[in-house]
Amino acid sequence: MKRRKLTTEELIEGVLAGDRLILSRAITLCESQKSDDIRASEALLKAVLPHTGKSMRIGITGVPGVGKSTFIESFGTLVTEQGKKLAVLTIDPSSQKTKGSILGDKTRMEELARNPSAFIRPSASGSALGGVSSKTREAMLLCEAAGFDVIFIETVGVGQSETLVHGMVDFFLLLMLAGAGDELQGIKKGIMEMADAVVINKADGENQKAAKRAKAEYQSALHLFPVDESGWIPQVKTCSALENTGLNEVWEMITKYQSTMHSNGFLVENRKRQQVAWFRENVSEMLGQAFYQNQEIADLLPEILSQVESGALPANSAAYNLMQQFLKN
Amino acid sequence: MKRRKLTTEELIEGVLAGDRLILSRAITLCESQKSDDIRASEALLKAVLPHTGKSMRIGITGVPGVGKSTFIESFGTLVTEQGKKLAVLTIDPSSQKTKGSILGDKTRMEELARNPSAFIRPSASGSALGGVSSKTREAMLLCEAAGFDVIFIETVGVGQSETLVHGMVDFFLLLMLAGAGDELQGIKKGIMEMADAVVINKADGENQKAAKRAKAEYQSALHLFPVDESGWIPQVKTCSALENTGLNEVWEMITKYQSTMHSNGFLVENRKRQQVAWFRENVSEMLGQAFYQNQEIADLLPEILSQVESGALPANSAAYNLMQQFLKN
Repeated sequence: MKRRKLTTEELIEGVLAGDRLILSRAITLCESQKSDDIRASEALLKAVLPHTGKSMRIGITGVPGVGKSTFIESFGTLVTEQGKKLAVLTIDPSSQKTKGSILGDKTRMEELARNPSAFIRPSASGSALGGVSSKTREAMLLCEAAGFDVIFIETVGVGQSETLVHGMVDFFLLLMLAGAGDELQGIKKGIMEMADAVVINKADGENQKAAKRAKAEYQSALHLFPVDESGWIPQVKTCSALENTGLNEVWEMITKYQSTMHSNGFLVENRKRQQVAWFRENVSEMLGQAFYQNQEIADLLPEILSQVESGALPANSAAYNLMQQFLKN
Repeated sequence: MKRRKLTTEELIEGVLAGDRLILSRAITLCESQKSDDIRASEALLKAVLPHTGKSMRIGITGVPGVGKSTFIESFGTLVTEQGKKLAVLTIDPSSQKTKGSILGDKTRMEELARNPSAFIRPSASGSALGGVSSKTREAMLLCEAAGFDVIFIETVGVGQSETLVHGMVDFFLLLMLAGAGDELQGIKKGIMEMADAVVINKADGENQKAAKRAKAEYQSALHLFPVDESGWIPQVKTCSALENTGLNEVWEMITKYQSTMHSNGFLVENRKRQQVAWFRENVSEMLGQAFYQNQEIADLLPEILSQVESGALPANSAAYNLMQQFLKN
């Protein structure tokens, strides 16, 4: 039996009422690339926008194997036990061909999936980087409008996803493992300086000593970084998502952050900047698309890039000349 | 007596012959915004381009007060004592009104200025960020064509200058001071992860112990960062530019880096990527200019941004609508 398509009004009502099924369909609508759907999702978003902004937005990243799912499950459960409604959004690497999430099953967070105070949504990443950002932001805003108090945005470290997620959350948490010495952890350059906290997972059993050591090392390292203008000095915690230890401290740290940043006005200021940055990123991306997808430019580009790479043609002259071509049209 | 204007041929000849006066005038030509000069400088650059690429390109940054001038003077002198010809380019914060360098005097590196093997040039930053990058790159290329073996590009930490300089050099050196404990050093976020080396200056007199301690702290911290794909692990050195100690070790480190990166092909690969990135940055910047300087867009923008900031209008919708407006023209 085919589902009836919901009107925009029904979607708005359902989202604002906190109806999970309708929320899911609203998010799906926003992910659609069809022009009718784009118009409808625009209207939907505009209508619910005044009801957004009231949640704690937390980004969670870390390399595969660090235990993100277990952490989100355990930490997420704790959050619901504080009486909060939790939404979890994941940025999955999507297959360009199937245009769907390859990590589409929620079963990696089974317990949380059954938790009535939690809502889990893997988001399709779409075909453009900006697509990832817009879809995830829109999903986040819809969840807020639906009454969720805390939003986790998980990123699995593909492409520029950490930077994008960092640009839309209040608090950015980096999950790490305790290494045996100088173990390379595979995270990308620049991520550590983005983090508001480093949480060292799997601090259990025989690994506890190593976790303690790693904590001290990271604390020293983070102290050497320049301090963010918010005044917040990134903290280091250890936890065991498996044994459920250390998670209370993580929650306390985040709530402390949130209240401090509300008091000193940084939270509001930061969100304003994020909005403007998102605007400019979108403009930049659309301009780039218009340029690089222009037929004449696309035809000329490989040869030009080859000459630029080899140093035969100065890059700024090459850019200038192609630009003249483009602006003529 | 007014100087005769040189023809492009004379400029090309003079640069390739290593004539300092003509090199200076060639760099000035490239800084000019007049359309005749832009055409002439394009021709000049194209002609000398085959003679570039053979120098060591070293970026040097650090906060005001860290002793960059003294360091460049002492370290630069050492470089010339190895038989190398050295060019020093500085990115000065320029006054928009005077369109000139406010740190225009070379007297802060007096000894080096008198050194026959050295050439010092403060570059005007121009009116656009892309302007900074292009002018400095062009000056660098001209210096290479004129036969200089080592090029220092100094940045004084304004705006995005570190990122720009990092994008055009082979080796990026961060000059720091030994702090008393957790002294905040005022460097911008992201700079530490860019550095190929941290050099702790003023390691003299009573400050030697502190410098040693700081060295150990930074070494631990840098070890925790992800390793660059080049395989190079950033090193930490101490030196006293004033007393001329530790500078040999800095030079050895850089020459080791250079030879390793030549052997494993990373240097060539990295330079290719820098060229392409420079191309894309220029395209992006010119597209942005065309958009934001469009009269209709400029008129609509303040109100749109205000709505985006306040959250009244979704940023991606705002961007999309403005883009439609722009593409119609």
